[in-house]
Amino acid sequence: MATDATAAAAAAAAAAAQDADAVETGNLLRCRNVRSNDDGEAEEEASVERAFLEKPVPTWREQLTVRAFVVGFLVAVMFSIIVMKLGLTTGIIPSLNVSASLLGFFLVRLWTSAIERMGLLKQPFTRQENTVIQTCVVAAYGIPYSGGFGSYLFALSETIAKQVTEANDALNIKNPHLGWIIGFLFLVSFVGLFALVPMRKTMIVDYKLTYPSGTATAYLINGFHTPQGAELAKKQVRTLGKYFSMSFVWAFFQWFYTAGNDCGFSSFPSLGLEAYKNRFYFDFSATYVGVGMICPYIVNVSLLTGGVLSWGIMWPLISSKKGSWYPDSLPESSLHGLQAYRVFITIAVILGDGLYNFLKVFGKTVKAFYEMYKEKKSKSLPVSNNGIPVAAVEAESFDDKRRNELFLKDQIPKRVAIGGYVIIAAITTGCLPLIIPQLKWYHILVAYVFAPILAFCNAYGCGLTDWSLASTYGKLGIFVFGAWAGASHGGVLVGLAACGVMMNIVGTAADLMQDFKTGYLTLASPRSMFISQVAGTAMGCVIAPCVFWLFYKSFDIGVSDSAYPAPYAIMYRNMAILGVDGLSVLPKNCLMLCYIFFAAAFAVNLLKDCVPAKVAKFVPIPMAVAIPFYLGPYFAMDMCIGSVILFCWEWMNKAEAQAFAPAVASGLMCGDGIWALPQAFLSLANVNPPICMKFLSRATNAKVDAFLGN
Amino acid sequence: MATDATAAAAAAAAAAAQDADAVETGNLLRCRNVRSNDDGEAEEEASVERAFLEKPVPTWREQLTVRAFVVGFLVAVMFSIIVMKLGLTTGIIPSLNVSASLLGFFLVRLWTSAIERMGLLKQPFTRQENTVIQTCVVAAYGIPYSGGFGSYLFALSETIAKQVTEANDALNIKNPHLGWIIGFLFLVSFVGLFALVPMRKTMIVDYKLTYPSGTATAYLINGFHTPQGAELAKKQVRTLGKYFSMSFVWAFFQWFYTAGNDCGFSSFPSLGLEAYKNRFYFDFSATYVGVGMICPYIVNVSLLTGGVLSWGIMWPLISSKKGSWYPDSLPESSLHGLQAYRVFITIAVILGDGLYNFLKVFGKTVKAFYEMYKEKKSKSLPVSNNGIPVAAVEAESFDDKRRNELFLKDQIPKRVAIGGYVIIAAITTGCLPLIIPQLKWYHILVAYVFAPILAFCNAYGCGLTDWSLASTYGKLGIFVFGAWAGASHGGVLVGLAACGVMMNIVGTAADLMQDFKTGYLTLASPRSMFISQVAGTAMGCVIAPCVFWLFYKSFDIGVSDSAYPAPYAIMYRNMAILGVDGLSVLPKNCLMLCYIFFAAAFAVNLLKDCVPAKVAKFVPIPMAVAIPFYLGPYFAMDMCIGSVILFCWEWMNKAEAQAFAPAVASGLMCGDGIWALPQAFLSLANVNPPICMKFLSRATNAKVDAFLGN
Repeated sequence: MATDATAAAAAAAAAAAQDADAVETGNLLRCRNVRSNDDGEAEEEASVERAFLEKPVPTWREQLTVRAFVVGFLVAVMFSIIVMKLGLTTGIIPSLNVSASLLGFFLVRLWTSAIERMGLLKQPFTRQENTVIQTCVVAAYGIPYSGGFGSYLFALSETIAKQVTEANDALNIKNPHLGWIIGFLFLVSFVGLFALVPMRKTMIVDYKLTYPSGTATAYLINGFHTPQGAELAKKQVRTLGKYFSMSFVWAFFQWFYTAGNDCGFSSFPSLGLEAYKNRFYFDFSATYVGVGMICPYIVNVSLLTGGVLSWGIMWPLISSKKGSWYPDSLPESSLHGLQAYRVFITIAVILGDGLYNFLKVFGKTVKAFYEMYKEKKSKSLPVSNNGIPVAAVEAESFDDKRRNELFLKDQIPKRVAIGGYVIIAAITTGCLPLIIPQLKWYHILVAYVFAPILAFCNAYGCGLTDWSLASTYGKLGIFVFGAWAGASHGGVLVGLAACGVMMNIVGTAADLMQDFKTGYLTLASPRSMFISQVAGTAMGCVIAPCVFWLFYKSFDIGVSDSAYPAPYAIMYRNMAILGVDGLSVLPKNCLMLCYIFFAAAFAVNLLKDCVPAKVAKFVPIPMAVAIPFYLGPYFAMDMCIGSVILFCWEWMNKAEAQAFAPAVASGLMCGDGIWALPQAFLSLANVNPPICMKFLSRATNAKVDAFLGN
Repeated sequence: MATDATAAAAAAAAAAAQDADAVETGNLLRCRNVRSNDDGEAEEEASVERAFLEKPVPTWREQLTVRAFVVGFLVAVMFSIIVMKLGLTTGIIPSLNVSASLLGFFLVRLWTSAIERMGLLKQPFTRQENTVIQTCVVAAYGIPYSGGFGSYLFALSETIAKQVTEANDALNIKNPHLGWIIGFLFLVSFVGLFALVPMRKTMIVDYKLTYPSGTATAYLINGFHTPQGAELAKKQVRTLGKYFSMSFVWAFFQWFYTAGNDCGFSSFPSLGLEAYKNRFYFDFSATYVGVGMICPYIVNVSLLTGGVLSWGIMWPLISSKKGSWYPDSLPESSLHGLQAYRVFITIAVILGDGLYNFLKVFGKTVKAFYEMYKEKKSKSLPVSNNGIPVAAVEAESFDDKRRNELFLKDQIPKRVAIGGYVIIAAITTGCLPLIIPQLKWYHILVAYVFAPILAFCNAYGCGLTDWSLASTYGKLGIFVFGAWAGASHGGVLVGLAACGVMMNIVGTAADLMQDFKTGYLTLASPRSMFISQVAGTAMGCVIAPCVFWLFYKSFDIGVSDSAYPAPYAIMYRNMAILGVDGLSVLPKNCLMLCYIFFAAAFAVNLLKDCVPAKVAKFVPIPMAVAIPFYLGPYFAMDMCIGSVILFCWEWMNKAEAQAFAPAVASGLMCGDGIWALPQAFLSLANVNPPICMKFLSRATNAKVDAFLGN
């Protein structure tokens, strides 16, 4: 699922973070931005808030403008489509925060300047309002991702269940439907928001957690509102717009040639037909070229390494054992044949990587607390270094003072937070079994008793490493609740649904704290942050299912080999089956290979953390290596092309590349991504592309020509 | 044929020349260069030779170095391949002089700097030597074009004769063969060189004819040998090299997808299948994009206009008369059906355009002579203005003096010239009938008696307008000699062979004078110019047939609808048949349409010359309009894309575009063109492309999928 892939990318960041350079700890796009803003940060450290001193900070009510939510809604719809598309194609989702910031900024500027010309502008556009938009958008486009449309939620469907053969019964299937999905999301998405609200002062002001992504976003927004920042943003938006149009037109053009399966540019055997059969080809997807430009080089290299390792070496070798390791009469997509190796080895790596990183983050958290406790005892100071390099810990700087002052001004009463949590948890406990009867009320109750602790762990770890382990907690849910319910009581379904409950609560808690950090650094009120987050989440709960429904009705979702294979859906269902049924039916040597890869994933991660940073940055990331195991390396090739473009650009003009590459990449992703919308509508209206661009071997072509000649 | 197309392009230039701006009178690439060099010309007018004063002028023997001929040979091979490819695909051949200059300059620089490092450089690279290379290359790559491989020579073959149905007998067919083609070319190509040698002083020094292309080349070469010129040339060469490689790699990549007919990028229905059937598509040919960047906008617009007029309107209308105007049982390629309209209307336009321009150039020549005579009488001065704006006519400038001095220093004795002409004419008269028995010795004798007069007319007209009417004289030969021999004595064959004799003598005479002008302006000796021209022609007589033979053996040449349709071959054969047999077998209304188009071509040309220049530059050129009549507008689309690229580039950065667009265009043409060489060898070695990229309609694709599924 999305989360895993982001985790993979974050792993790169986390690995980089090891080398004492805390700034590297952002994930993906955010990562780059922290880096480029950092140069300025050092100089401006003392002056950020001084520079903004003459600008008044609006009250929290003034920060919540109608236009902010309208713009937030528009950007959220756009990014929901993109995230949904990414999640259903490969599950690799880069951080879209910079694109969201740029677009949000652009749209509000458009709005305000239009209104201004009409003489109706009542309120100038402030960075606090910008933060509100950003928070709303991030909350909203988080849902198509934490909602599990590419993973646990869609894993409940018959489409996926059919491919798996075990637990393929009515008890363990719940086909997606717009109604129950919206209900489900509303029930599970808000609890997390209330769980950690009372802890915000502790985490932001007292512990001074870094939250690299949140910090980066804040610097970006602060940057936009300085004059030269606004100028750069304008240029970036123009670049984004240019590549957006190009990418959209290109996607539109491609569409005409896709009448039928294996037609069009996405089936272009650019390296030959033999390579194409092993999924080595460039599929002309602007989206993944853009994603490749945003992801760190090591992620792309890892993906390609994984592709070569699996589709270049392992699968051909294993398929030569056909008839010996597994029966040769099976269809290509059967999970008792080659597909089993693909799926379960991927799962092994995901779990190995997840376990390692859970232990690591958990260890760091415990260590930080221990040191804090020790220091507290020795110095008896309320605020103290928590063992992680945090800027400006010693004395309270001007910026800190002003930020603390404003952050603590607008309080969210504890009773609202705790009351909200209890009420929503109660409603969810009562109502969720109505939607998924196999999930009992006591399952949910237990989940919600432990959830705040897990949410705290995750938010704390995320603050340290920028890495939300939501999907790992979700997998924990799969195994614990699946086993608890048991096979005979729809354990697979229960496991997957529990995964959703866990993931949402743990994930949104971390997101909220991230946003509080952004608000803290832009002087936005915690109250407006919280409301914006709630509003954004509510939007997401409606937008995401609608977008999913559009995709579901328009395209063949979840079919292996199709344009939307939803790879993590089958992974999650198989994990759930593992949790309930054990490892009974795997083909020969598959389990052995799984153990090897589980251990290897663990070991490589350990290696990455132990060797010096210079070496570590060349060690591939196991999670990223595993993604192409199931899908094939074609999107890795797209992403590597993105890397190559970025590399050449940086080589020619580093400053320009750093300033505009995120805009180009966002443009490529957004243009191609948004084309999914008209494409879906065309498909719904039964308007089919007119031409098939087909690739035939010389011999087949001669046969076809003879056939058509008759 | 090539000449026609160049004529079409030159027509644009000629039209532009009307507007008192003599500099515009270059054709194609040359044209642009005159323009861009012209800015400097005005300032440097008095200083060109002064700037070079301290550089000694080598003797004529020193100008003729081995390295010059080696480099000349290499560049000649390259451009022969390109010109051959262009001639056999569409017949549109832009001037490659700038590319030749750049490459020649680059190769010698490479050579000299390598030798210099080894301490072996005896002689520095002078502009005179550069001119020798240039002359040699231009003479050599003129042969694949005046040799008629895309026109009269290939029109003799059975492949073309089969398509025509009349005069389809052994008497009128001579299949190409390497041996006799080389012999034929050696016999006909040298006469022209001797015919006008004695006139060189009269034309260059006395009449001061402009020869815009020759002048432009001279300025280019002079420019290369100034320090900043060399710097720019280096950059241009680098640009050329970059686009050369890109274009070559692209052509190579395309090759993989061309297993079978209608496969690959060249059959990409970029505007849909319906448009593709009417040959409206972009065929991804880098060559024609490059050609489009070199040709004036009006040529490209004219081509597209012609394409829309014919394949968009007329042919669909005429084909709706199928069964009424012509029998509906005929195959698509029959010259009694739709194809007849395509071929004969094109011929009508070619003849109408040719007649108009012949009359125009002839009229101008007569007028110029008349005025010269009048002035001579009144002023009794040996040198006088000939009615055309020539720079610096009044007093003899320093440059003129120095140029005249050196130009008149090395003489070519009259007896060598006249003796050479007589001897070669005698040999040709004796030997040509051995190769083509239907062509009698008295035919050739008559041709050679009148040839010097025609050659003078053409060289003079070319000096005035930059427009060699060689192909028009060739067509004259077709009709005169064809009718003379008569149908029963192989008149078609005789006409075509006579066309070759005429074209070569008339064409090479004009080329030689052009080169003398270049030599005059670069202080190269006329003697070294002449020897270089002879050597280049000899190279061409071997290289061109070999290249043609390679194409002929490797590809399907002359087949309508194939990659190498050689459109002018069928045009020329049909003209020859018209000359011999008359207009007996044309389908209904075809003759009427031919008359209309003949008149229209004449009228439009007249209109272009009568209306003000501002309007004239928007009037299409009839010749260019006619080219897509037979071929379809696909290459016009490529060329228009080239135009659009150039237009945008000029809009963004005019100086850069003017300096580098010719280099980019040359790179695109050369890279794609030179790929024909390895492609031909692959084809000869029976290495076939592995994949067919096929374009099927939705319905057909469903059928094919069902067929392949079984």
